[in-house]
Amino acid sequence: MQIEKYKIADNNDKQIAAHKRAFGFVSEGVSNVEEMLQKLKDFQVAIPSWALGTGGTRFGRFSGGGEPRNLEEKIEDIGLLHALNQSSGAISLHIPWDIPENYANIKALAAQNGLRFDAMNSNTFQDQPGQEHSYKFGSLQHVDKAVRQQAIDHNIEVIRHGIELGSDSLTVWLADGSSFPGQLNFRKAHQHTLEGLQEIYKALPDNWKMFVEYKAFEPNFYSMTVGDWGQSFLYANKLGDKAYTLVDLGHHLPNANIEQIVALLLGEGKLGGFHFNDSKYGDDDLTVGSINPYQLFLIFNELVEGMDARGMNHATGLGWMIDASHNIKDPLEDLLQSVEAIKIAYAQALLVDTKALQQAQADNDIVKAQEILQGAYRTDVRPLVAEARLRSGGALNPLSVYRSEKVREQLIKSRGQKAVSTGL
Amino acid sequence: MQIEKYKIADNNDKQIAAHKRAFGFVSEGVSNVEEMLQKLKDFQVAIPSWALGTGGTRFGRFSGGGEPRNLEEKIEDIGLLHALNQSSGAISLHIPWDIPENYANIKALAAQNGLRFDAMNSNTFQDQPGQEHSYKFGSLQHVDKAVRQQAIDHNIEVIRHGIELGSDSLTVWLADGSSFPGQLNFRKAHQHTLEGLQEIYKALPDNWKMFVEYKAFEPNFYSMTVGDWGQSFLYANKLGDKAYTLVDLGHHLPNANIEQIVALLLGEGKLGGFHFNDSKYGDDDLTVGSINPYQLFLIFNELVEGMDARGMNHATGLGWMIDASHNIKDPLEDLLQSVEAIKIAYAQALLVDTKALQQAQADNDIVKAQEILQGAYRTDVRPLVAEARLRSGGALNPLSVYRSEKVREQLIKSRGQKAVSTGL
Amino acid sequence: MQIEKYKIADNNDKQIAAHKRAFGFVSEGVSNVEEMLQKLKDFQVAIPSWALGTGGTRFGRFSGGGEPRNLEEKIEDIGLLHALNQSSGAISLHIPWDIPENYANIKALAAQNGLRFDAMNSNTFQDQPGQEHSYKFGSLQHVDKAVRQQAIDHNIEVIRHGIELGSDSLTVWLADGSSFPGQLNFRKAHQHTLEGLQEIYKALPDNWKMFVEYKAFEPNFYSMTVGDWGQSFLYANKLGDKAYTLVDLGHHLPNANIEQIVALLLGEGKLGGFHFNDSKYGDDDLTVGSINPYQLFLIFNELVEGMDARGMNHATGLGWMIDASHNIKDPLEDLLQSVEAIKIAYAQALLVDTKALQQAQADNDIVKAQEILQGAYRTDVRPLVAEARLRSGGALNPLSVYRSEKVREQLIKSRGQKAVSTGL
Amino acid sequence: MQIEKYKIADNNDKQIAAHKRAFGFVSEGVSNVEEMLQKLKDFQVAIPSWALGTGGTRFGRFSGGGEPRNLEEKIEDIGLLHALNQSSGAISLHIPWDIPENYANIKALAAQNGLRFDAMNSNTFQDQPGQEHSYKFGSLQHVDKAVRQQAIDHNIEVIRHGIELGSDSLTVWLADGSSFPGQLNFRKAHQHTLEGLQEIYKALPDNWKMFVEYKAFEPNFYSMTVGDWGQSFLYANKLGDKAYTLVDLGHHLPNANIEQIVALLLGEGKLGGFHFNDSKYGDDDLTVGSINPYQLFLIFNELVEGMDARGMNHATGLGWMIDASHNIKDPLEDLLQSVEAIKIAYAQALLVDTKALQQAQADNDIVKAQEILQGAYRTDVRPLVAEARLRSGGALNPLSVYRSEKVREQLIKSRGQKAVSTGL
Repeated sequence: MQIEKYKIADNNDKQIAAHKRAFGFVSEGVSNVEEMLQKLKDFQVAIPSWALGTGGTRFGRFSGGGEPRNLEEKIEDIGLLHALNQSSGAISLHIPWDIPENYANIKALAAQNGLRFDAMNSNTFQDQPGQEHSYKFGSLQHVDKAVRQQAIDHNIEVIRHGIELGSDSLTVWLADGSSFPGQLNFRKAHQHTLEGLQEIYKALPDNWKMFVEYKAFEPNFYSMTVGDWGQSFLYANKLGDKAYTLVDLGHHLPNANIEQIVALLLGEGKLGGFHFNDSKYGDDDLTVGSINPYQLFLIFNELVEGMDARGMNHATGLGWMIDASHNIKDPLEDLLQSVEAIKIAYAQALLVDTKALQQAQADNDIVKAQEILQGAYRTDVRPLVAEARLRSGGALNPLSVYRSEKVREQLIKSRGQKAVSTGL
Repeated sequence: MQIEKYKIADNNDKQIAAHKRAFGFVSEGVSNVEEMLQKLKDFQVAIPSWALGTGGTRFGRFSGGGEPRNLEEKIEDIGLLHALNQSSGAISLHIPWDIPENYANIKALAAQNGLRFDAMNSNTFQDQPGQEHSYKFGSLQHVDKAVRQQAIDHNIEVIRHGIELGSDSLTVWLADGSSFPGQLNFRKAHQHTLEGLQEIYKALPDNWKMFVEYKAFEPNFYSMTVGDWGQSFLYANKLGDKAYTLVDLGHHLPNANIEQIVALLLGEGKLGGFHFNDSKYGDDDLTVGSINPYQLFLIFNELVEGMDARGMNHATGLGWMIDASHNIKDPLEDLLQSVEAIKIAYAQALLVDTKALQQAQADNDIVKAQEILQGAYRTDVRPLVAEARLRSGGALNPLSVYRSEKVREQLIKSRGQKAVSTGL
Repeated sequence: MQIEKYKIADNNDKQIAAHKRAFGFVSEGVSNVEEMLQKLKDFQVAIPSWALGTGGTRFGRFSGGGEPRNLEEKIEDIGLLHALNQSSGAISLHIPWDIPENYANIKALAAQNGLRFDAMNSNTFQDQPGQEHSYKFGSLQHVDKAVRQQAIDHNIEVIRHGIELGSDSLTVWLADGSSFPGQLNFRKAHQHTLEGLQEIYKALPDNWKMFVEYKAFEPNFYSMTVGDWGQSFLYANKLGDKAYTLVDLGHHLPNANIEQIVALLLGEGKLGGFHFNDSKYGDDDLTVGSINPYQLFLIFNELVEGMDARGMNHATGLGWMIDASHNIKDPLEDLLQSVEAIKIAYAQALLVDTKALQQAQADNDIVKAQEILQGAYRTDVRPLVAEARLRSGGALNPLSVYRSEKVREQLIKSRGQKAVSTGL
Repeated sequence: MQIEKYKIADNNDKQIAAHKRAFGFVSEGVSNVEEMLQKLKDFQVAIPSWALGTGGTRFGRFSGGGEPRNLEEKIEDIGLLHALNQSSGAISLHIPWDIPENYANIKALAAQNGLRFDAMNSNTFQDQPGQEHSYKFGSLQHVDKAVRQQAIDHNIEVIRHGIELGSDSLTVWLADGSSFPGQLNFRKAHQHTLEGLQEIYKALPDNWKMFVEYKAFEPNFYSMTVGDWGQSFLYANKLGDKAYTLVDLGHHLPNANIEQIVALLLGEGKLGGFHFNDSKYGDDDLTVGSINPYQLFLIFNELVEGMDARGMNHATGLGWMIDASHNIKDPLEDLLQSVEAIKIAYAQALLVDTKALQQAQADNDIVKAQEILQGAYRTDVRPLVAEARLRSGGALNPLSVYRSEKVREQLIKSRGQKAVSTGL
C-alpha cells in the first residue's frame, strides 16, 4: 500500500500551527538553523529487510500480521516509511532471504520508492535447505576447508547480487565462536577467519567497502571469533583500505563505553558503519533510544566531532543502518520510532557548541563540559527534526499519520494475518 | 534402545583395576567413606523432557538426529542415561509438550526404566495452536482477566496431569515482563501475578510443592515480573507453606553471588529446588560445570551446610533438576557430563571439614577457611563418584559406554536423522 | 561565606527576559502549571555532610581547596547551595565525622541557613582512633559479640545525637560482608546482623524511621551481608513498621532495573528513601544524571506514580538525599548540578500524562506508552524548574552565580588551599 | 627475619611420607613427570613490592602489623616467601615508593635472598609531595604539555633506576581517563598518550621490554585512555618491537573472555606479561585462584599452548607477576596462596593432552575436548607442585611452616604493630 501525499499534507495542516510555534521558539536559539536543517534532511538511515517482520526469541515468536511476504513487499513497506519520514531512503538486503528474481524490476521498484540499496548482508549462521555443509561449528573459522570455502563462496555471491543492484558495501557478521572451553583453538580460528575474509576481500569491487561486524556473545556463549572492536580492527587492518569495523550498539559486554570505541575507530580511519538499536542486557535489539537515549546522543557527539575533524560528509561518510528485531511492537511503528530517535540524537549533537566544549576541555573545566553537552541534550529538538521532515515532503508526525491511515489494518487485509516475513 | 547390563559390566571390567587403585588412594583420606558413598548413591538429578533434543538460539537450530519423537522415547532416553549413571532416576515433564495419552502406560514405562516423575512444568510463554488468547503481552501479569484465567487454568491442568502420574510439585516459570519502559505498571503486574499464583496454589494438593522460578531477563528485555530471588520470595511468602523459590543458575544478573542467595533462602526455609546449568553471559544453558565449576562447588557447599543445619535429607529435601539446552553437543552426552559435574561438586562439598571450617570462621582465619574449602575442591573425587555408581550397578565411565555402544548412531537409525524433539 | 540576596537578584535580572520567553513557551503545554511549580518548590534534597569535600579513590585523592574544616563550615556550604537553588534545605550528618560540640548552636546555625536535619548516618566501616574493637571483619555480622555490641552502641549513640538535633531517621549502611569464599557463614552473618538491627531498632523513637541500605559489592568483594533489595526488605520486614529499605542508585549489579525495585518497594510500603548519584561500572558516585538521565527519569516516574497511588506527599513521604563523592569536580558545583538533575527528572515525571499512560498500558499499546514517556522526557523542563526556583527566591542559574561570585576562590582564601574535609 | 633451612627440612620430614604416597599415585599417570617437574621448578612469579603491606579500599584500611618499613624489609619479606616456596624469585619495584638509597647494597641484598629485579613500575596516578604538576586530570593524556613532560620524565627516571638494578622491563599503567562525558576529547587523549609513550620508548635500552597495561575502569569511571586490550595493542603496535601488552586479570569488563585475549595477543606476538589476581566485580585484587580457579587454568592452557607454538620458554618468555592487594588477609600468607594457585594452574595446563585435544578440535568433538581439559583440571596436582618445591629446597607446605614458625608474630615484634608499608 501507499499513503497518498495529500493525506500527509492534510495531517500536517492540522499540526502546522503548533509546530510553527515550537519551531519558532527553538530555532531562535540555533545560530545556523538552515545549515542544520539541511544536514537533517540529508541524513538517511537504511532499513534492513528483516526488520519488517516480527522478530522472535528462542522462546517463541508472536507474529503481528500483515508482514511482507517477499522482497517487493519489503520495498513497499520501507517506501511507506520513507514517504512518512523522508529519512529511510535505503534498504539493506540479506542473502539468501532477499534474492531478487529480476534485478531490473527490483531496482525500478526501489527507485519508485525513493530507495537505494545499502550494505548487503551475508548469512553463514544458519543452514539453508539443501546446503552441502553445515555451519553448526562455524563458517569461516571452521576446521574443515570445505565449509570455509562454502562460506567464502556465499559471501562472493552476495557481492555479486549487490553489484547488480547498485549496492557498494558488504557487511560480514559471523556467528563463529565456541560455546565451551576447549572447543576451539583460538589462534587457528582467528587465522582461518582472516584467510576467509581475505578471499572475500579479493572479490570486492574497488569502490566497495567491507564491514567486519563484531559481537561479544550470542549465539555462541563462550567465545566469539570476531568478538570485540579490537579483533574486528585487527582483521580490518590486515585486509586493507576497503575494510572497516562496523559497530552494532548491542554487541558489547556490560558497561562498555561505546562512544569511546567510536571515537578511536574514527581516529584510526577504520570506522565503517553502524547498526542502531538499544538494549539493557545483551543484544536485546530494542527500539533505538528506548533504553538509554543519552548514550545515543554521546555516540552522535563523537561521530559529529570525529567526522568533522576528518572532513567527512555526515550523510555519506559512514554506513547508517538500523538493526533491531521487533518482538512485540508493530515493526513499522517501531522503525518510525527508531529513525526518529536517531534524528533527535543527531540534531542534539549538531547543537553542541564545539568551540566552547574544546575550551572547557582545554581548561579541564569538567563541570562546564557537562553543562555544554547536557545543554544541547536537554534542548527539545523535536521541532527541528520535524521541520526538516516537513521541508522534505514528509509528515510532521509520521506515527500519527501511520495510525490515522490504519496502515497495519490495511496490510493485514491485503497480506493476511498469518503472513510471516523472513528473518529471525 | 537399551544398553544391556552385561555391556556395562564388560566395560567396567576393563577399567576396574585402574579404578580400584584410584579409589583406594582417595578413599584413604576420607573418614566416612561408606556414608559418603551412600549419599552419592541416593542423590538423583531429574532430567527435563525438553533437554533430550537439540536446543536452539534465535539465530537457528542445528539438529543432531535421532531425537525422541514422543514421550515414550523421551522416557527411553532418560532410562538409558539412568542405566549408565544410576543418578538420573527422574523425569520432569513439560505441558503441553508431554501430555500422556495413557497415564497407566506411561507410568509403567517409567517404572520399567527406574524413573519417577519429578516437578511438572507449565508453559505460558508460547502460544499453542488453537489457543484462545495470546501470551504476547504476558500471562499471569496480563491486563486482560481472560488471559490471566487461561494461564491459571493451564497451570491447574498441569497439576492434574501431575497427580495422575504421581508427581508432587509444580514449577511455574513465567516469561512475563516488559521490553520497554512504560509498557507495564509494575505494581499491577505484580498484583495480577500474585493473584494468579494464589488461584493456582489453591488447586495444589496438600502434599505438593509449588516452585516459583525467577529470571533476570529474557525473553523480556526491560523487566521481568518474577525477576530475582527477592520477588520470588515475596510471592512464595504470600502464597503459603507449600510455595518455594526455585533457583536456576543462569537466571541472574552478572556477578551475582548465587551461593549466598541459596544460603539465605535455605535459612528462611523457602528454597525449593534447583535448575542446574552453566553460563558466562546470560541464560546460556551450557553444560553444568563447564564454565565455572568452583561456583558449583561453593553452591553445593552452602546446600550441604544449610540442609544439614535444618536436618534435611540431601536426596529428597530439595528438587534437583538439570535445565540446559544443548545446541551443539549430543544432548545425551551433555546430560552425562552435567550429571557427573553435579555429583563431583556434591562429593567435594561432602569432603569439606565442617568443624574445621566453623572454627576458622570463628577465628576470622580467612586464609585457613580458604585452605579448607580448596582442599576439598582440589581433591580428585572422581573415583568416589565412580565407586558409588559402580555399587549402584552403573558404569564406571558412562560416556565411554555410551560411545562404545554407538548409542547415537543407533538412535538415528531407529528414529531418523530428522527427528525433532519438542522443546526450544 | 554567604551570597547576598541582591547579587542573586542582579544575576536573575540579566537572564529574566530569556527565561520568561522560555517559561512562557513551555508552560503553555502544561495544564496544571501552578500545581507543578508548587511541587517543585516543595521538593528538597538533603546534602550529606561528607559530599562537601573532595572524594577519593583507593588510588589517591586530589583535594581542591577551601573544603569545610568543621560542621559549622559544612552547614555554611549547604546554606550557600540552598540560597542559590532553594532545593537543598536539609543536611544529613555522619557520626563520628560530624559530632556537634553544642547542639543548640548548631541547630541555630542550621535554622539561620534554612536547613533541617535529615537522616543521621552511622559508621561501622572504619576504625576510629581509640576504638576498642576493629571492624576489619565486619560490625553487626561479626562473630564476636563484643564487636557487635560496639556497633550497636554506636548506632544508638547516633540516634541520640539525632534526637538532640531534631532529625527523625537513621540510615544504617553496613560494609559487612566477605571477600573470600568460606570466610563467612552466610546464615549466621545474616542472623547476627538481624539481631543487631533489632537492638538498634528498639532504641528508635516512635516518630523515627530506620533506613536499611543495601549494596551489591565494595568494600567487600565476595559477598555483602545486606547485598540487595531482597535482603534489605527481609530485614526491614522482620524489624517492624518503622524500618524501611533505602535505595542508593549506585549499589546494584550491572543492568539491574532499579525503577522496578522502587515500584515494588513502594507497593509493599517499604521504600524509605533514596541516595542519588550516577555510575557506569559500580558505586562510582558520579554526579546525578551525568551518565544515564533517562534512567533517573524512569525512577522518578515510578516514584510519582507509586506515591500518588498511596496518597503520599512527594516532598515528605520519602527521604531524598544525594550521596556522591566528587573526585575531580568542585564539590559545590557538582552538588548544584546534581540537585538540578534531580529536579529536572522530577519535573519530567510530573509532566507524564498518567491517564493516557494507563490507557496505553490497558491496551498493550507499547508504542504509545513509549511516546507518552518520551514526550515528557524530551520536553525541555529547565524553565519550569528555574521558575520554581525564582519564585522561592533562588537563582535562575545557580551555577552562573556561583561562578560569577567566585565562591571557590573565596573559600580557599578564607579556609586555605589545604583544608581537608572529613569523608572518604 | 629468615627461616632457617633446617626448620623447613624438619617440617618437610613430618609430611614426607604422606607426600610420597600422593606423589607416587599422581605421578604414575604423568608420562613426562621429570620434564614437568623441571618446568615447575623453573617457573618463578615476581612479587610486587606493594603487595607486602595491607591494601585498602576507599572506605578504609585495616593494617595487620609488622609491615615492611623500607625497601630492605620488602626484599627480606620476599626472600622469606622464596625460601618457603622457591617460586617467588623476583621482585617488582614501584617508583617512587621504592627508590633505593644505594643500588649496590640493594642488589647485594636481593642476590643474598635469591631474587632478581623484575619489571619496574612507574606512578603517574598520584601526586607526590613537592611535585610540580598535578595528575588530577591525567598524566600522559593531559591537555597541558608540561604535565605530560613531567610524566614522561618520571618514566624515564624509573627506567634509569631499573638499569642500575638490573631490571629489563618497564610496566606503564596509566590511570588516565575521564569520569564524565565531555571531559575528554578521546582522540586527542589517545594521541597525547601515544606521543608520551613514544618518548618513553625512546629511552628504553635495547634489551628492555615495555609493557602497556590496560584497565577498563577505576580510578576513572567513564573512560580509560588505555581501557582494553585493543587500545593497548594499538599503542604497542605503533611503538615498536619492544612494546607489549600486559594483561591484569582484574582489568576487564564483566564476563570478558580473558583466555581468548591471551591467545590472540600471543598469536600476534604482542603479549608481554601478566598481573595475576582474582576478582568477582571489578579490580577486586583478591588472592589468585580464590574466586574462579577454572578460568585461571584455562588461561594457563592458552599460555602453554601458545608459547609452545611459538617455541617460547615458559619461565622466561613472558613477565609473570602477582598484583593483588590484601585487605584482610596477612599479605604474606596471601602471597603464598596466590603463588600456589598459579603453580597449580600451570601444572594442570601442563597435564593437558595437547595432541588429543587438537584431534578433538579437528573432529568438532566438543564433548571430548571438554573431557580432556577437565580431566587435567580435576587431577589433584598438588603433589606434583610440592615435589618440585621439595626438589628446589622449599617447603612441602609453605603455609604450614610460615604458621608454625610464627613469622607474622616475629615481624610485628621486630617492626611494630603500626608499621605501614608504602602502597595503596
